[in-house]
Amino acid sequence: RTLRIGLIPGDGIGKEVIPAGRRILEALPASLGLKFEFVDLKAGFETFEQTGAALPDETVAILKNECDGALFGAVSSPSKAVKGYSSPIVALRKKLDLYANVRPVKSVMTAANPIDMVIVRENTEDLYVKEEKTYDTPEGKVAEAIKRISQRASSRIATIAGEIALRRQKIRESGAPSIHKEPLVTITHKSNVLSQTDGLFRSTAREALANPRFKDVGVEEQIVDSMVYKLFRQPEAYDVIVAPNLYGDILSDGAAALVGSLGLVPSANVGEGFAIGEPCHGSAPDIMGQGISNPIATLRSAALMLEFLNEEAAAAKIYAAVDANLEEGKLLSPDLGGTAKTEEVVQDILRRL
Amino acid sequence: RTLRIGLIPGDGIGKEVIPAGRRILEALPASLGLKFEFVDLKAGFETFEQTGAALPDETVAILKNECDGALFGAVSSPSKAVKGYSSPIVALRKKLDLYANVRPVKSVMTAANPIDMVIVRENTEDLYVKEEKTYDTPEGKVAEAIKRISQRASSRIATIAGEIALRRQKIRESGAPSIHKEPLVTITHKSNVLSQTDGLFRSTAREALANPRFKDVGVEEQIVDSMVYKLFRQPEAYDVIVAPNLYGDILSDGAAALVGSLGLVPSANVGEGFAIGEPCHGSAPDIMGQGISNPIATLRSAALMLEFLNEEAAAAKIYAAVDANLEEGKLLSPDLGGTAKTEEVVQDILRRL
Ligand SMILES: CC(C)[C@H](C(=O)O)[C@@H](O)C(=O)O
Ligand SMILES: CC(C)[C@H](C(=O)O)[C@@H](O)C(=O)O
Repeated sequence: RTLRIGLIPGDGIGKEVIPAGRRILEALPASLGLKFEFVDLKAGFETFEQTGAALPDETVAILKNECDGALFGAVSSPSKAVKGYSSPIVALRKKLDLYANVRPVKSVMTAANPIDMVIVRENTEDLYVKEEKTYDTPEGKVAEAIKRISQRASSRIATIAGEIALRRQKIRESGAPSIHKEPLVTITHKSNVLSQTDGLFRSTAREALANPRFKDVGVEEQIVDSMVYKLFRQPEAYDVIVAPNLYGDILSDGAAALVGSLGLVPSANVGEGFAIGEPCHGSAPDIMGQGISNPIATLRSAALMLEFLNEEAAAAKIYAAVDANLEEGKLLSPDLGGTAKTEEVVQDILRRL
Repeated sequence: RTLRIGLIPGDGIGKEVIPAGRRILEALPASLGLKFEFVDLKAGFETFEQTGAALPDETVAILKNECDGALFGAVSSPSKAVKGYSSPIVALRKKLDLYANVRPVKSVMTAANPIDMVIVRENTEDLYVKEEKTYDTPEGKVAEAIKRISQRASSRIATIAGEIALRRQKIRESGAPSIHKEPLVTITHKSNVLSQTDGLFRSTAREALANPRFKDVGVEEQIVDSMVYKLFRQPEAYDVIVAPNLYGDILSDGAAALVGSLGLVPSANVGEGFAIGEPCHGSAPDIMGQGISNPIATLRSAALMLEFLNEEAAAAKIYAAVDANLEEGKLLSPDLGGTAKTEEVVQDILRRL
């Protein structure tokens, strides 16, 4: 099988880590029967400055018509509002209907307090519909934004969360070490305040997970504020957390703190038959150009993309090579307290493939 | 001076901790020249079940017309949406225009990694305006909520955040041990997605803090997802964090995890000349009735209320007594790993007043 992968480095360290993603795909053993073709694509703030569009139509068209998946780096947010600019990754998620943002947060299982959870974030609606308006009043300006929650999006995100819980259980049953015994989905919301919107998310997720095919999956709920508290007090209690878009954004950064660095945490933006791998970190202008960015989030994102393109064996190879690097702990980038350069970390991991 | 204080225990352990708040006020040394009168008031889910109103008009009227301040316990959220019920504390904040929710999160300064920050949460708008609607579409139900951000509310919350930063600096300069050297306000928002609403919060807060009276206060910004990450990676970097309502709700629970228990974290709902102290924890039905709830969040909330009623000397007495109990660490409630009953903790702290 040949997979055609779009490469969208974006801005800042996106340009340093996406090439590493390409290299690990190219280095996968031939025995897996996978071939890759790559297409370089543009998006980001630099693209906006050059072309007037942060997400050129061509990028979207090529992804839609020619690609099986993609890797997306990071984009800089301008420090002030810039007329006509808006985040290309948010637009891409909506244009390709990549309805699930899957963010596994996992330490090595040999850690003192191992962590193994995945945050499944709804990726197309909530406040991210970006329908805003501003008006004047005698007391000054007032701005409003719409938070939109649909039964359709809530149902499919809860369904994929349930499926991920079952898949994780299957991997555990095949002997992979884990801290969990039973699959569990935790529904996160704030329906004690937002009874209609978050109430709809909650009841729809409950309903979707009541489907008989999830009969072995435990289901519980946490109000989002309490969820953040518990995330830090007892992270080992969580397996799959499902949340509306904005809470998922916040929870996944919070969870990243549990494993020591955002530089370790991958994500995949998942739609029907298409997936974009995306490291959870940003463009990190402060460290850009020094060759010290951590490539692991991107390598794991490449693996995660493969998982959702049904190439689980290839994904497992990459995860294992990354885990071996971390478990040995000799070649670590500065965000993990090491002194290794991006290139050294990449080479160490490629060697272990 | 005589202060008339409304007591609203609410539900669950609210009934166990609010009496402790009353006792510490009554036990303050006579030399402070303060007298207290108390009025018992109703609110909460139990009140709703008895009277049909979660926040009886009488409670609001007495607070408005007769009281200088109040202590609020906690309310249970029903596990399913109940027609006609909505959170009385959210309503109270709006009805009394208690525009700031001030939540200091502080460890004892003798801790290994001491923490000393305060989250200043806007308390009247954002998604808490609770303007929601639901409609049917061919693809199922859709619900929408309004997130409203005004220049007026953003300006006054940023202003009180700046004032709190200055006040904290004054207390430090008077010799109180602290981990901070300079006052700093961190503005939290998500203006990279919500350019109008959170953009307005951000620019208005910047403007308010550019007032010359804040010339000695450092001002910086954090996007909310990154803020949660940094809160856990380098909590010692934060002094005053100011945020719109919902982010403030989430951040303050997150910060509470840093000091080991929600049972330690107080809050004050502050308006012009009025303040309601409120422990950050909930009604905790799981431990209710066992006499083991931690009274410290409430005792500190009583102190915080006094601070905002300009009784700083009285507040300082309570803080010192609580800190002495925690520093000795002999009589701790179970949430802190101890075995002491609520009553024993209260007595230990009263003794140290
Ligand atoms: C850059 C920003 C628009 C984005 C988001 O909020 O989704 C980022 O935080 C993420 O999590 O991918
Ligand atoms: C109970 C709930 C409505 C409330 C809130 O969201 O404000 C609580 O979480 C708090 O922080 O006081």
